[in-house]
Amino acid sequence: MTAESKRIVLGVQYDGAPWQGWQTQPGGLTVQDMLERAIRQFTGSEIGTTCAGRTDAGVHALQQVVHFDTVLEREMTSWVRGVNTFLPPSIAVRWATAVPHDAEQPFHARFSAHARQYQYLLYNHPVRSPLLTGKVGWAFRPLDIDAMRVAAAQLVGEHDFSAFRSVQCQAKTPVKHMHEIRIERRGDLWRFTLHANAFLHHMVRNIVGSLLVVGNGSRSLAWLQEVRDGKDRKHAAPTFMPDGLYLAKIDYDPKWKLPQEPVRHFLWPEDNEPA
Amino acid sequence: MTAESKRIVLGVQYDGAPWQGWQTQPGGLTVQDMLERAIRQFTGSEIGTTCAGRTDAGVHALQQVVHFDTVLEREMTSWVRGVNTFLPPSIAVRWATAVPHDAEQPFHARFSAHARQYQYLLYNHPVRSPLLTGKVGWAFRPLDIDAMRVAAAQLVGEHDFSAFRSVQCQAKTPVKHMHEIRIERRGDLWRFTLHANAFLHHMVRNIVGSLLVVGNGSRSLAWLQEVRDGKDRKHAAPTFMPDGLYLAKIDYDPKWKLPQEPVRHFLWPEDNEPA
Repeated sequence: MTAESKRIVLGVQYDGAPWQGWQTQPGGLTVQDMLERAIRQFTGSEIGTTCAGRTDAGVHALQQVVHFDTVLEREMTSWVRGVNTFLPPSIAVRWATAVPHDAEQPFHARFSAHARQYQYLLYNHPVRSPLLTGKVGWAFRPLDIDAMRVAAAQLVGEHDFSAFRSVQCQAKTPVKHMHEIRIERRGDLWRFTLHANAFLHHMVRNIVGSLLVVGNGSRSLAWLQEVRDGKDRKHAAPTFMPDGLYLAKIDYDPKWKLPQEPVRHFLWPEDNEPA
Repeated sequence: MTAESKRIVLGVQYDGAPWQGWQTQPGGLTVQDMLERAIRQFTGSEIGTTCAGRTDAGVHALQQVVHFDTVLEREMTSWVRGVNTFLPPSIAVRWATAVPHDAEQPFHARFSAHARQYQYLLYNHPVRSPLLTGKVGWAFRPLDIDAMRVAAAQLVGEHDFSAFRSVQCQAKTPVKHMHEIRIERRGDLWRFTLHANAFLHHMVRNIVGSLLVVGNGSRSLAWLQEVRDGKDRKHAAPTFMPDGLYLAKIDYDPKWKLPQEPVRHFLWPEDNEPA
């Protein structure tokens, strides 16, 4: 970041179903490729971007956080409208802001994050729902929410999450602090909210998959504890489908004054919203 | 319908975005083509289907009602699971039932229907939402819900709806009885519920489009009344996008004992659903 340039931060929402994940690839069919192409078309400049959390193929973002540096002068509303003009319907910039300059420790979408929240939406019904295809995971067997909540509690706190880590994971340490795993149900729709300082690769999908086999009775509570303590990926349940996974919120120090929107899942309206 | 055959009724849900409407076409890219192909693959028989309401390209159904005749003996759960095996992810049979035999006036998905309910879901926000693409209409200008409710009331009751009828409409009469137009809002999401004995081609989208121009202030309440009374399609607002339109419910005499599911829109959970 040069003295003249500004660091711009974007809130980006996307449907991950059509894309091969966040991170740029040679084929160019990723969210990052689409965003950088749109910025190039809007500005005429080649500008690299950095995100808070790289999402996998098929995984969505309610509010991914992305930063880039530029010497260009644009109104923040122009960044939103201008870049959106060149983005496909499944990706949109929701807000833009210039972060305050900090020569000591500049804002960084990934390294400045204190914690992340993911949500997993699940449809639990004998028959699949075509209107939710690609937006939720599907479990057709009945689930025991109480057993799943007890199981989830075993994963809260600081743990070595090696049992829920993909072999491709590049994180320096498998020890993460899980602040909360909340499980809610509304009719046939379930929501799992996971809040941790950081997540390993495939960690949410592996945890949700493991909670589901406890919920449908094919595995016991004791099994989940053994899996956790065994620290061996081969013992946990298979990685559950990406369809219901949403990167929901990234936590930063309020000093950065990011205009983040409240976490609201479109499949889960809050009770107190105006009628 | 021969003496030996049964009339089977299906509840069919679909995402209309990938399809060129309900009705079969030479290209074969319609919901009816997909359903009849799946029935053929499941049964090995060529079976024609009849639906309650033909939806246009891009229009969805929470619960389309479809009937067909067959001499084949299958459990009702087999019709559901078997046909679903051969349907694409955007279409599913939700339930199946055999209707009681009535030699005088047999059940007919379309002609036995007393009334229909459509819902239109709208996202009202300055920035589009990529996670709702194809599932909602989008209006970026603020809307006056009170003005829209007064405008909607002008269209309730028995009226000649020629002003809201497409030129392709094949209905015998433009006079329909609108039982209710309900407009609700939850944050940025709006829902229009229209209930009438029958609808003309494009009628819901033309009414919603006309309510929107009243709501955003570009047209007056008096204008809508003139449009209605003028009975001339050229004076109403342009046909609004199909993305937010859902065929929600078909009303039949309870004597047919159809196992219809309660009308629940996935973007609009009911307040009293279990938490």
